[in-house]
Amino acid sequence: MAKADKRSKLRRSAVELAYRQGFRKTTLADLAEESKVPIGNIYYYFKTKDELGEAILETRLDEFHQLRDFAQTLDLPKERIRLFIDATSENRAVVAERGCPMGSLCAELLKEGGFLGERSNALFAEPMAWLAAQFRMLGRTDADALALQLMASLQGVSLLARSFHDPRLIETEAARLKDWLAAL
Amino acid sequence: MAKADKRSKLRRSAVELAYRQGFRKTTLADLAEESKVPIGNIYYYFKTKDELGEAILETRLDEFHQLRDFAQTLDLPKERIRLFIDATSENRAVVAERGCPMGSLCAELLKEGGFLGERSNALFAEPMAWLAAQFRMLGRTDADALALQLMASLQGVSLLARSFHDPRLIETEAARLKDWLAAL
Repeated sequence: MAKADKRSKLRRSAVELAYRQGFRKTTLADLAEESKVPIGNIYYYFKTKDELGEAILETRLDEFHQLRDFAQTLDLPKERIRLFIDATSENRAVVAERGCPMGSLCAELLKEGGFLGERSNALFAEPMAWLAAQFRMLGRTDADALALQLMASLQGVSLLARSFHDPRLIETEAARLKDWLAAL
Repeated sequence: MAKADKRSKLRRSAVELAYRQGFRKTTLADLAEESKVPIGNIYYYFKTKDELGEAILETRLDEFHQLRDFAQTLDLPKERIRLFIDATSENRAVVAERGCPMGSLCAELLKEGGFLGERSNALFAEPMAWLAAQFRMLGRTDADALALQLMASLQGVSLLARSFHDPRLIETEAARLKDWLAAL
């Protein structure tokens, strides 16, 4: 396997492990086992747990970039924002079990503190800046507040759905948010 | 000090420790140091970390009960709901630093799993049931959905404020939520 492929495969395994069992509990040894790559080989890609955390964070950000790039192919800002809401809603079964992929990682990295804690808010800052740009295209002067409102609702309902083990809460809120968006 | 007083003092110290450094990191030895009570004496009150977790959870629920009991002295359901919003907003400096006292504890206990994980959703279930009752008094047939919407917004913005170290996000959302409430 080429180095770039192996790096990419290891990043996917690391993201999956951190989502399933938490970043804190995830060791380089776990990653070796999950990815079937010898531990001595893992060290070539990740020297420390901080490097592993950074790779997980960047991989999650890449997922948002892919969603954003696809959304940009849609004509209307409202369609793009709707796609963003649908992305959470479609994941509601796993979100109710493990939390929002972005939000739960952000909460964990905040607790780690240091460089990872400081960098963690990119997981919210990038989507919010993009959402605000869409609201501005709708002519809204309160675009930042609308982006905050939407992101807070989605993050909050993800936490509640996880706490109650109930994906329907996300369905309810997503439907309301899409009505709200349509009426803007 | 009477046993009931000492128990109460230990519970306060435990809540403060868990909020400051996280429940996971909090040991019975930390509690002995924080409360200036000898560790042998601590074991009289809390035999295990699970018992400590339960006491912290019940103490946080008591705080909500006190807020609710005070709110019940207000005449109008909208005034009571406004008080609930203000409670988060007034705490915004500490929420932006450490997270929502209820939400961050719930997230931590969920990760602990077991009895504490199962019990943790009382931290959301009780306030949401109470909020829904207030919305029903306003004649709203969508009272449960409104309670979900309000709780999700407050929890979500608390997480965002913590991530960005910015209490003003809570101020912005609380002001919007109070306008929304007034217009219901």
